[in-house]
Amino acid sequence: MTGEQRTATKVAVIGLGAMGSGMAASLARAAFSVRGFDRRPEAMARLEEGGVTGAASAAEACAQADIVVLVVVNADQTEAALFGDDGVLGATKRGAVIVSSATMAPERARALATAVEGAGRLYLDAPISGGAARAAQGALTILVSGSRQAQSLAAPALDAMGAKIYDLGEEAGVAAAFKMVNQLLAGVHIAVACEAIVFAKKLGLDIAKVIEVVSSSAGNSWMFENRMPHVLEGDYRPRSAVNIFTKDLGIIADMSRSEKFPTPMASQALQMFLMTAAQGMGEEDDASVARLYADIAGVELPAAKLQVPADDKR
Amino acid sequence: MTGEQRTATKVAVIGLGAMGSGMAASLARAAFSVRGFDRRPEAMARLEEGGVTGAASAAEACAQADIVVLVVVNADQTEAALFGDDGVLGATKRGAVIVSSATMAPERARALATAVEGAGRLYLDAPISGGAARAAQGALTILVSGSRQAQSLAAPALDAMGAKIYDLGEEAGVAAAFKMVNQLLAGVHIAVACEAIVFAKKLGLDIAKVIEVVSSSAGNSWMFENRMPHVLEGDYRPRSAVNIFTKDLGIIADMSRSEKFPTPMASQALQMFLMTAAQGMGEEDDASVARLYADIAGVELPAAKLQVPADDKR
Repeated sequence: MTGEQRTATKVAVIGLGAMGSGMAASLARAAFSVRGFDRRPEAMARLEEGGVTGAASAAEACAQADIVVLVVVNADQTEAALFGDDGVLGATKRGAVIVSSATMAPERARALATAVEGAGRLYLDAPISGGAARAAQGALTILVSGSRQAQSLAAPALDAMGAKIYDLGEEAGVAAAFKMVNQLLAGVHIAVACEAIVFAKKLGLDIAKVIEVVSSSAGNSWMFENRMPHVLEGDYRPRSAVNIFTKDLGIIADMSRSEKFPTPMASQALQMFLMTAAQGMGEEDDASVARLYADIAGVELPAAKLQVPADDKR
Repeated sequence: MTGEQRTATKVAVIGLGAMGSGMAASLARAAFSVRGFDRRPEAMARLEEGGVTGAASAAEACAQADIVVLVVVNADQTEAALFGDDGVLGATKRGAVIVSSATMAPERARALATAVEGAGRLYLDAPISGGAARAAQGALTILVSGSRQAQSLAAPALDAMGAKIYDLGEEAGVAAAFKMVNQLLAGVHIAVACEAIVFAKKLGLDIAKVIEVVSSSAGNSWMFENRMPHVLEGDYRPRSAVNIFTKDLGIIADMSRSEKFPTPMASQALQMFLMTAAQGMGEEDDASVARLYADIAGVELPAAKLQVPADDKR
């Protein structure tokens, strides 16, 4: 696709949180014509920095769009954005591609694909991974499944947002399933990293040294290496929040029952995130599970204080 | 230390399993004079290949040794080798360094250090990590704590056995504690890797693709990347056995109680290893936890068959 054609391609981004705002900016940087919408005024306020044009509603953002990227929180919000009053589907022209990036159960992705395709639009199951920093750089990992036509039309936009694009076949729901397997692992790895680091502190170890040694040993995980510096620095500002994992491990719990497949490790991790959320830390960084362990066991972590009232949503 | 002096340094290696035999061979390759002993005749038979001289007893191996490396299974075996009839301590000259490499609870390491030092020998708490292949290459990670004198005398031998030597201070038990924290993480990571990969199979995913995608995503762990190819290949020959983790997570369970520190993730993982051992797979590769999940949920894994009678100790 030439630069001239790219300039003409219109993309709407619905959902301008930590991920969506970076994805919209990456698309604008790649010379797409990008309109963005978020129901939250504070998210809209950040738009202008990224060269993205704001819209007054999802329908207005989608009116001329060739591609709509949906980056809301979950399947329910995706469904509401698509099919609600003044929704995406009614506003979008026939043949447009709906790129659905929220993490959700595979059966929800399949149902959305059926409804969208039944209405004459294309659907791409396209969950994302990599965090806000990589979203802003256009360097996400994007897991993709859906029809060849949808993949082909969306490819330049996916390339603008992602560094690694995995083609997982033509069936919507497959990419969603890959993402859920990844989240199962990620959630357990965060919970056990927090358990291990506070246990190390309880044993009197130098936790900076523990992080150094484990990071180059067989006990390492991507999450251990990424999250434990937050504990070391006592910095629990939400790069990714506890509530993301009560949600994602909650989906795993639902899938576990519907598939009749036991997931004891994920189930235990979900309980740890729920306990952390119950202590008022749901909107804080997911490494806050360490503060739960520290509070329970009377261990002092660097600069960490369990002083968030349950009703103070930071 | 010059080559000539090194030639004169005599090392005894007690315990010639997967790790000890490789460590003995690495020492011999570095021009140490190495005598080895193992109670199992089949372990002794492998000795000659590595340029290591066999001894008729632990005492005979240690008679002239400057350094004794103890690489037995656990604290009880270490204690028996040191203090039993015809044991290491009585046979070793005063001032020799006992390098203790079995994984054990920190309090056991402290007690052994006190007893060994009380008898006029030096003690080095020196657990190892990295597996049999790296033991054979002299490329282990060695976690070391103990007196400066012990560290200094053992340094050339440690360099011959290890690629990374972490100096964790002068107090025996600290290195043991670091190793236990690593094992807590490693055990949980294996259990959840097995849970996730069989869940993926149950969801109908291509597990080769799952391993590829997760290995470069935020759900990755060292253990996922290392062990999941065993599942893909259906190869459960023990690179590291299930029983290693029933042992090590068992030590964590003991420490959890004695420290009054809850370890719910490690506790759940221990149960998964115990179930796998109960199914007759205790001596097989620790990725066999995947076969347990597959058997429970009726999922077929590549070339994996749960056909090991409980009394067939392979």
